Amino acid sequence: MLEKKLTPMSLEHVQIQDKFWKGYMELVRNHVIPYQWEALNDRIENAEPSYCIQNFRVAAGLQKGTFQGMVFQDSDVYKWLEAVAWSLMWHPDGELEKTADETIELIGKAQQPDGYLDTYYIINGLEKRFTNLMDNHELYCLGHMTEAAVAYYKTTGKRKFLDIAVGYANCVYEHLGTEEGKIPGYPGHEVAEMALCALYDITKDERHLKLAKYFIDQRGRQPLFFDEECRKNGNKCYWDDTYMKKQYYQAGKPVRDQDKAEGHAVRAVYLYTGMAEVASRTEDRGLFEACEKLWDNIVNRQMYVTGAIGATEHGEAFSFDYDLPNDTVYGETCAAIGLIFFARRMLEITKDGRYADVMERALYNGVISGMSLDGQKFFYVNPLEVVPEACEKDYNKRHVKPVRQKWFGCACCPPNVARLLSSLAGYAFEENEQELYVNLYTGGILDTVKNGKKNRLVIETEYPWKGRVKIRIENQEDTAFTLALRIPGWCQGYVLKVNGENAEKRPEKGYVLLERTWKNGDEISLDMDMPVQILEANPRVREDIGKVAVARGPVVYCLEEADNGDQLQEIYLKEEPEFKETYEPELLKGVVTIQAKGKRVSREGWEKESLYRTYTGKKFEDADLKFIPYYAWTNRTPGEMTVWVRV
Amino acid sequence: MLEKKLTPMSLEHVQIQDKFWKGYMELVRNHVIPYQWEALNDRIENAEPSYCIQNFRVAAGLQKGTFQGMVFQDSDVYKWLEAVAWSLMWHPDGELEKTADETIELIGKAQQPDGYLDTYYIINGLEKRFTNLMDNHELYCLGHMTEAAVAYYKTTGKRKFLDIAVGYANCVYEHLGTEEGKIPGYPGHEVAEMALCALYDITKDERHLKLAKYFIDQRGRQPLFFDEECRKNGNKCYWDDTYMKKQYYQAGKPVRDQDKAEGHAVRAVYLYTGMAEVASRTEDRGLFEACEKLWDNIVNRQMYVTGAIGATEHGEAFSFDYDLPNDTVYGETCAAIGLIFFARRMLEITKDGRYADVMERALYNGVISGMSLDGQKFFYVNPLEVVPEACEKDYNKRHVKPVRQKWFGCACCPPNVARLLSSLAGYAFEENEQELYVNLYTGGILDTVKNGKKNRLVIETEYPWKGRVKIRIENQEDTAFTLALRIPGWCQGYVLKVNGENAEKRPEKGYVLLERTWKNGDEISLDMDMPVQILEANPRVREDIGKVAVARGPVVYCLEEADNGDQLQEIYLKEEPEFKETYEPELLKGVVTIQAKGKRVSREGWEKESLYRTYTGKKFEDADLKFIPYYAWTNRTPGEMTVWVRV
Repeated sequence: MLEKKLTPMSLEHVQIQDKFWKGYMELVRNHVIPYQWEALNDRIENAEPSYCIQNFRVAAGLQKGTFQGMVFQDSDVYKWLEAVAWSLMWHPDGELEKTADETIELIGKAQQPDGYLDTYYIINGLEKRFTNLMDNHELYCLGHMTEAAVAYYKTTGKRKFLDIAVGYANCVYEHLGTEEGKIPGYPGHEVAEMALCALYDITKDERHLKLAKYFIDQRGRQPLFFDEECRKNGNKCYWDDTYMKKQYYQAGKPVRDQDKAEGHAVRAVYLYTGMAEVASRTEDRGLFEACEKLWDNIVNRQMYVTGAIGATEHGEAFSFDYDLPNDTVYGETCAAIGLIFFARRMLEITKDGRYADVMERALYNGVISGMSLDGQKFFYVNPLEVVPEACEKDYNKRHVKPVRQKWFGCACCPPNVARLLSSLAGYAFEENEQELYVNLYTGGILDTVKNGKKNRLVIETEYPWKGRVKIRIENQEDTAFTLALRIPGWCQGYVLKVNGENAEKRPEKGYVLLERTWKNGDEISLDMDMPVQILEANPRVREDIGKVAVARGPVVYCLEEADNGDQLQEIYLKEEPEFKETYEPELLKGVVTIQAKGKRVSREGWEKESLYRTYTGKKFEDADLKFIPYYAWTNRTPGEMTVWVRV
Repeated sequence: MLEKKLTPMSLEHVQIQDKFWKGYMELVRNHVIPYQWEALNDRIENAEPSYCIQNFRVAAGLQKGTFQGMVFQDSDVYKWLEAVAWSLMWHPDGELEKTADETIELIGKAQQPDGYLDTYYIINGLEKRFTNLMDNHELYCLGHMTEAAVAYYKTTGKRKFLDIAVGYANCVYEHLGTEEGKIPGYPGHEVAEMALCALYDITKDERHLKLAKYFIDQRGRQPLFFDEECRKNGNKCYWDDTYMKKQYYQAGKPVRDQDKAEGHAVRAVYLYTGMAEVASRTEDRGLFEACEKLWDNIVNRQMYVTGAIGATEHGEAFSFDYDLPNDTVYGETCAAIGLIFFARRMLEITKDGRYADVMERALYNGVISGMSLDGQKFFYVNPLEVVPEACEKDYNKRHVKPVRQKWFGCACCPPNVARLLSSLAGYAFEENEQELYVNLYTGGILDTVKNGKKNRLVIETEYPWKGRVKIRIENQEDTAFTLALRIPGWCQGYVLKVNGENAEKRPEKGYVLLERTWKNGDEISLDMDMPVQILEANPRVREDIGKVAVARGPVVYCLEEADNGDQLQEIYLKEEPEFKETYEPELLKGVVTIQAKGKRVSREGWEKESLYRTYTGKKFEDADLKFIPYYAWTNRTPGEMTVWVRV
C-alpha cells in the first residue's frame, strides 16, 4: 500500500525553540521575507528590479507597461507568499497578513475570466498561451501559485487565494490533455505535479489529481510533445545539444522507464516528488518503483556528501554516475531543497529512516550553506572546494562564487530557503493517528492529539552539537501512542531511557518505536554518540580518491583558509588524527570546531626549482588543522575551502 | 649582444636516418602532405570541404563563386606549401614541386596590383580590408604566406613566391603604421612578426624589419587600437568577457610590460617568437628581457610536463599560474609547436641548453602526441588524463577527444605538425662558422663546412630508447671546430669519449663543447644514463599533488586502460616501484615500455555500499602496472589514460 502513513505536523501545533533552527527561522522571518518584499516591489537600491509586482499590476490593468523580468517572474511572489504563510502559522503578524491579503487581491485582479493567470502571456498576448510549455514556465507558475495558495489556506482559512489557484488549475485542465481538442503538453519545469496533489487533498476535486497524474503519465511519451512543440516554434530549442536534448527536461522517455536522474537537477527532484505524490494517491506501484530507482541512483551515484546534487553547471544538471567534481559542481541550493521534498514523500510512504538520513544530510549541509549566517546573502551554487583565484580566472568555474551574493536576477534560491525553513517543523515531526515520528532533532514544544487526548511533548536538545535529546510528555490523561525516534544513519551507538530506565529496542527501518501509554511527566532521553567521523567515498568517485571528509553527527566539516592557510591541496590528515572537539560560542554563531593532527606537503627546495623535479619521496611538515562546519564557510575572510582532504 | 649565435643547419645538408624521426618525416611526406593537398582541393569524401584553393581561383577571376570557409582559410595552403618546401629540401620530388609551382602561380593571379592578397577581402570587397585586424586574420595570412615563401625560396631558389610575399608585405607597410594617414593596427593573430624577420634576412629590405618591429612596438599601446577598431565595428567583440578581453590577443598592455603568458596560447608563443626575432635584430635589451620573463612564466608556472601549454579551452588559452588541470586542459598541438619556435630563438640568442630542454620535452611528448602513428589522425587537444565517458557526458570536456580525429574544420594542427617535422633537422642541428651544436639527438648524416673545409658527421643512435650516441667525423683535411653536445636536463650521468678516451668536460649552459682539430675517422661516443625517472610537480599545482609522472629520457609515460584496466584513479605507484624496461619492437611501432610494481585501491565492501562510508583505512591490492610513452596513447583500443599517477 502506497498511501502516506505520515503527515507533517501542522506548524501551528509546533513551537520550535531551538538555538540552531529557531535562529534560522527568525532570520527568514525578520530578514528574508521583508527583504524579498522590497525586492518584489523594486525598492532595493543598486539591484536589478524584479518587476514581479509591477507585472501583476500591468496584467490587472492598474498601470500601463510591458512585461519585464524572467518569463517565470510571477513565481517569485508565489514563493514569497508561501514563506509568509508558513511563517504566519508559527508567528502571527497582522500587518504581514494584510500585505499578503492585498497581494492576493492584486493577483486575483490579474486573473482572466476563464481562470488563466500568467502575467507574461496576459501582457504579451493571450493567443500565444500554452504554445511554449517547454520553456515558458506557465505551468511552473501554476505550481508555485498552488503551493502558496494551499499554504495560505491552511494558515489563514481564507479561500481567496485557493480559489484563484483552483481557477487556474481548472483552466489548465480544460486546455491540456490527450483528449480531442486539447493540447497534449506538460510542464517544462516541473512543480505543478506535487502542487496539484496538495490542492486535491483540500478540494477533493478529482480533476486536480487527474491533471497531476496526466502530467506524470504524458511526460516523455512518444511522439514527444516537446519535439512537436519545438517544430511548431521553428525548432528553436535551447537545450538541443548532445549533452542535454530532452533529458534536460526529464522528458527523454516515459517517467516509469527512467532509472537515472538526468537533466536540470531542480526540475528532476521536483518531478520525482510529484511522482511520489501521484503514486501514493493512485496506488501506482510501477510509478513508485521508478521513484525508488531514481532515488537510489541519486543517493548511491550522484549525490555529494553534503547532500548537494547537480554535478555540472551545463544545464544546472546531473551529469553521470560517480561524476562528482568538487570544484566545478553546481549543487544548487534549490536542488538540495528539492531532494528534501522528494525524501519527505518517500519517508511518508515507507516510514523508512534512510530517507530522513538524506533529508538531514541535505538540510544541515547543502541547504543552509546557501544562506549567510546573517540571512542577507545567498549561494546559488554550493561548491565543496573553492580557490578564489580560480573562480575569478577559470571560465569553467565562473558559476562558483567564493562569497555569497546579495540577491539574484533569477531569485529562486533565497525564497526557496525561506519557504523550507519556515515550514521546517513539518519535516522534523510527522504523525498519524497512532504515531508521532521525530525525523529531525530540534528543541521545541509539540501539541498533538492522540486517541482524542491532548498531549504535549517538550523537546530539549543542543543538536547538532550534542547527541543528547530529552523529551518530556505532558498530558492530563494517560495516552497510548507510539513515539518513533529516528536513529540517524551516522549514529553508531546510543543510550535510550524512559524515566531513567533502559528502553533500548532494535530500530525498525531507522526508528525506535516506543509504543506505550504515556503519562504526564514521562521523560525520554536519547543519548547518541557523536564522535568525529571520517568518511570515504566510493573509489569510483575520481575526485575523492585518496581523500576523506570529516563529519560529526549530521554536520559535514571543511577546512577554510582562514584557519589553515592557503594551498589547501597540500594538507593531509594523519591516519591517527587525534581529533579535539570544541564548542566555540563566539565563532560563526556558535559551532563545534574540530582540531586535528595533520601534515602539509613540504615546500622544501621548491623555492629554487620551478614546476617539475625528480621525485624526492613523501615529505611533510606537521600541521595543526582546524575544521569548521561546511554550512558556515565563507562567513569570515573569503579564501580557499575544501571538504575532502587528503589522507 | 642579442644577435643569434646559431643558425639552423640547412636541411639539404642533413640526411636524417633515424628509425624514430625518419619514420615521422616519411609519414608527413607520404601521408600528411598528399592528404592535405586533396583536402585543400575539396576531394576528401565525407569531409567538410576546405574551399581553400577554390577561394584563390575565385579571387583570381578563374571561376565564379563566393568566399567560403574560415576567414583565415588562405593560411592552409601556405602551411602546406611550407611543409612541401622543407620536405623537398631533403627529398626532391619533381612532381610535387610542379604542383607547388602551379599553386604559387594561382596565388600570384589572385594578388592585387598593389600587392594585397587575402582572398576573403578580394572576394567580399576590398573596401573593407584592414578594417577588422583584430579578428579577421589578414596579417596572419601574410605571416604564413611569408614563412612559406621564405622556405620555398630557400629550397628552390625560385623568386616567384618570395616576390608575392614581398608585394603583400610592402602593401601592408604602406597602409599600417603610426604615420599620418596610416592605420595604427597590428595582427589579431600573430605570426607575421617572425615571418617578416625571416623575410628581411633574405631581402635586407629595412621595411620588412621595420614592419615586424612596428607590430611588436604598437601592440597593447594606449589608446588601444583594438578598442578603437571595435568601436568602429559596432562593439562586436567576441572575447570581451571578463576572462579574456584584449589579453586574449596579448594586447592588454605593451609587450615589454608583459610578464605573464596570457590569452590564446598559440598566438602568445608566436608573438614571443617574433619578439625574440626582433630583439635579436635590433639589440633591443628591454624586449629580450620581456621574452625571458614570459619564457620563465611559461616553463616555471604554466607548462605541462608534456610541454603542452594552454590550460583552458575558453579561448584555447593560458589560464593562471600553477593552474594545470590534466583533464580539461587544452594543450593544443600548435601551441606546443609554437613553444618550440620560441625555444629555438631563445637558444639561438643565448646558446643555453635549457631552451633546448623544453624544445625536446615538447617535441617528444606534446607535439607528436598530436598525430596518430599512421599519420592519418590528429589531436587538436592533448589531454594528460582522459576518461572516455567524461568526454562524452561532461560538457566541460567537450573539447577533449578520446581518439584522434580525421581532419578538422579548422585544420591548423596537422599542417603545423607537417611543417615542423619536415624541418626537424634545423631544430636538431645548428651552427655558426666555428661551432656545430647538436641540440637533439637523432641519427643522420650532416655535411658542414668549417674553416673552409668540408666535414661530414655520421651520427648513430637509438635515441630516445637508448642514451648512447656515436658520432664519426669524416673529412679530407683536419678541421678545427667546436662540436657542442647537449647534455639534456633530464640526464644525471654520462660518459663521453673521443676515440675511446675520456673526454668529459663540465657542460657550459647544458652543452659540452668539444673544441679541437677533428681528423677523419674521429669517433665521439656519448653514453647518457637513461633510467626510469619519477617526477613530481610543484605542490602549488593542485591537480598533481600526491601524484608523480614517470619518464625516461625525454619521453614522458602514461598508463592506458588497454594495459591497466579502467578506473585509473584507483592506481598508486609503490614507493619502491622496481621498474622493468623492455623494448617492444612490435608495440606501437617499437617503444620501450615500463613495468612497475603498483597497487590499486581495494573495492572490498563497496559492492554492498554506495557512495560514502566510514573510512576503513588505506586498503590496496597489488597491481602490476605498465606504462607506455605518452605520445603513443590511444593508438590501440580507446580507453582511459593518465600521465600523473598517485603515489
